[in-house]
Amino acid sequence: MSAALIEALRAALGDAHVLLPGDHDLSGFERDWRKRYVGRALAVVRPADTAQVAAVVTLAREHGVPLVPQGGNTGLVGGGVPDDSGTQLLLSLQRLNRVRQIDPSNLTMTVEAGCVLQTVQQAAREAGWLFPLSLAAEGSCTIGGNLATNAGGTQVLRYGNARELCLGLEVVTADGTVWDGLSGLRKDNTGYDLRDLFIGSEGTLGVITAATLKLHPLPRARMTALAACDTLRDAVTLLDLARSRCGAALTGFEVMNALSLGLVRKHFPQLPQPLGPRPWTVLLELSDSEGEEHARTQFEGLLEEALERGAIDDAAVAESLSQSQAMWHLRESIPLAQSEEGLNIKHDIALPVSRIPDFVERCDALLAVRFPGSRLVDFGHLGDGNLHYNLQAPEGVAAADFLREHETEVNAVVYDQVTAHGGSISAEHGIGQLKREELAQRKSPVAMQLMRQIKQALDPRGLLNPGRVV
Amino acid sequence: MSAALIEALRAALGDAHVLLPGDHDLSGFERDWRKRYVGRALAVVRPADTAQVAAVVTLAREHGVPLVPQGGNTGLVGGGVPDDSGTQLLLSLQRLNRVRQIDPSNLTMTVEAGCVLQTVQQAAREAGWLFPLSLAAEGSCTIGGNLATNAGGTQVLRYGNARELCLGLEVVTADGTVWDGLSGLRKDNTGYDLRDLFIGSEGTLGVITAATLKLHPLPRARMTALAACDTLRDAVTLLDLARSRCGAALTGFEVMNALSLGLVRKHFPQLPQPLGPRPWTVLLELSDSEGEEHARTQFEGLLEEALERGAIDDAAVAESLSQSQAMWHLRESIPLAQSEEGLNIKHDIALPVSRIPDFVERCDALLAVRFPGSRLVDFGHLGDGNLHYNLQAPEGVAAADFLREHETEVNAVVYDQVTAHGGSISAEHGIGQLKREELAQRKSPVAMQLMRQIKQALDPRGLLNPGRVV
Repeated sequence: MSAALIEALRAALGDAHVLLPGDHDLSGFERDWRKRYVGRALAVVRPADTAQVAAVVTLAREHGVPLVPQGGNTGLVGGGVPDDSGTQLLLSLQRLNRVRQIDPSNLTMTVEAGCVLQTVQQAAREAGWLFPLSLAAEGSCTIGGNLATNAGGTQVLRYGNARELCLGLEVVTADGTVWDGLSGLRKDNTGYDLRDLFIGSEGTLGVITAATLKLHPLPRARMTALAACDTLRDAVTLLDLARSRCGAALTGFEVMNALSLGLVRKHFPQLPQPLGPRPWTVLLELSDSEGEEHARTQFEGLLEEALERGAIDDAAVAESLSQSQAMWHLRESIPLAQSEEGLNIKHDIALPVSRIPDFVERCDALLAVRFPGSRLVDFGHLGDGNLHYNLQAPEGVAAADFLREHETEVNAVVYDQVTAHGGSISAEHGIGQLKREELAQRKSPVAMQLMRQIKQALDPRGLLNPGRVV
Repeated sequence: MSAALIEALRAALGDAHVLLPGDHDLSGFERDWRKRYVGRALAVVRPADTAQVAAVVTLAREHGVPLVPQGGNTGLVGGGVPDDSGTQLLLSLQRLNRVRQIDPSNLTMTVEAGCVLQTVQQAAREAGWLFPLSLAAEGSCTIGGNLATNAGGTQVLRYGNARELCLGLEVVTADGTVWDGLSGLRKDNTGYDLRDLFIGSEGTLGVITAATLKLHPLPRARMTALAACDTLRDAVTLLDLARSRCGAALTGFEVMNALSLGLVRKHFPQLPQPLGPRPWTVLLELSDSEGEEHARTQFEGLLEEALERGAIDDAAVAESLSQSQAMWHLRESIPLAQSEEGLNIKHDIALPVSRIPDFVERCDALLAVRFPGSRLVDFGHLGDGNLHYNLQAPEGVAAADFLREHETEVNAVVYDQVTAHGGSISAEHGIGQLKREELAQRKSPVAMQLMRQIKQALDPRGLLNPGRVV
């Protein structure tokens, strides 16, 4: 049966775009970049356009073969690689990589799913506009994957997640038909919100083949500052103040605890740290529609008031673009410094901003008692309530052993506290394979039931990315 | 059977909250405020809280009785009134009217579905924050209805529709269980987007009982201006310029054609019109996080550049809050002036902003040929691509006769052009009963099929607001 399927796929896509395990090294498709998930594909298919994607879905359906859609393969939860059965067809969207249209007066652009995020950003910038989605993997992740996982990143505070940046979708449904929902409309109340149902469904309800995205005006100036806080509560006060004084100009608000920047200092001593070691350091970014002068005045007013109120006790405003970039570079170096330090346990969690100080206080205390010497690397997008609350093994302890022995327990402590504080166990990375069991345990049974009903309705044979999410 | 149901409802809610047609005047519930739809309810039930709503849904299900949820009964498409069969139970949410919580550091508030929008706005303002949803019916519409219909209004350009202002929902599902999705999280990628599926589903998939809403910083100043344009294309140029110069400070951009303001001049001559009759008048609003001085400077810079470029040839900036209000009052008086002028045909349409000038030019021309003397009252939220493209009967012709004879034809001309220009036949008012047939004709069959599959999955007996949307 699979031979007949391969034959039909070759006829539909051309021989060159149906890659078989015997003939090709498929490892770049079969394992995730962190090498946590290593699978085997029945074949890798590389359709060129939406019609070919529809043909692949139709053929897979006729042959009862499961499909795993994949974009740039930069996911963090094993959502885009096949399992190890050798029975799943890997559907790569990378050849669907055209920018179909840019419409400046409507502030929209229509792109195909396989466009690399950076390409999308550049095309927008060349047309004089901003596509604000920005994240570490932007050089290789694809917009289809960004939408399928509702990606977050560093600009969510002002511009929202991938969901908020998308107006319309083109999707191949489980039965192989094409839904053309590529609307560039800001308002459209004609029935159920299919767009947002497909966004974030991680390829389990349909295959996103193109999207119409929102553009924003390019700010005239971007400026960054660092501020030192004694407590996380002070950082929340600073956030309140910044939102109130700067409104939508506040485009970044990141926190980093002492250990986060300590590891950066240890492993990347060449990176300048303007403020020296402090319990908490906040990185603020303003995007100004008027200019640098105005941004600087805004920053000075804000930081002065924060000093007066005692929310911060030191601050440094970047004097140049390169200083701004250096500040962001500090923030972005934390995950690398963590890797240098050794294996660690990562949590991508979200909480109501108001409850974060209490969460961190309690969870830190519980972990210190249960795992003496363990070291917490806390940093993240405080403005969005999104923390990367990571744990490094105690100094001198073999990290691999520590993880093997304690990872499950550590997760239980952290996720119990997340639940107790009204939080989410996956803020921006999704569920995939990694958190599927955890989700079934922790999500409300009513929500799980609704999700299963929807999955059953839209993919009754369960052939789209099986074993993920639900 | 219905006697047993009534008995059970009385036991669950108390006698005083199960209103029967024989005992009470139910007309306030049974007909919409425009009196287009006049139905008969089996009974009106007024539960006090979420548990009672769940009890009502469960009982209705057991007895196979359809339910019509209703908030403030201010809808425009007959979505919240029963049909005339006398078999539908009207479920009023008005007693669920508590503000449950305001969380300033998280910028959220949790409110029950029956809260009047104005009450929500006021509670936010008293806590020092802005809940930006704003529309003509705000004194009587409820937040539950706003979410069920994904309401729009005058602040969408900056803050989005009701959908973009909601972080979490509490919903009673078709089987009478309560989904507690009252999250205050900005990021939560744990499965399918149930929230956005219920938002805008007009009570056909579940009954919204509470919501967690986003708050925004109160602007320090709001300022309004009027500008005169020769063509709609010039108005789009002005919009491009305003977005680029003012960024997120631009909170309003409304257009009004000559006839719109002409009818206001005719029927409300006491309202000052600073610019005199012009082909197109634009109302701009800036919301400034710094203050009035800054807003004025911004406006002056913008209008100067627009004059230089020839996009406008006259403008007036409000000198005071009362002048700002007077400008908005002009805009808001158009529908009233239309009523004074006589019966008319209304279209609530959305288009890509870039295609609006072409749409209006073509559609105006087609209508002028087909219905000589008919008068087009065009106004609306140009910044969102949302036009109220309304047609008044020719002068001297009996409007009722004209509508009876031509409304269907006029709609066909307009909606054909909307479709040809990639637009939507319902921008912000929803589908309800009014546009259900039209939707089935015009929406893509693939989308209709997906919607029916979802409806079937979440409400298999079809008891939730039957005959609406799908």
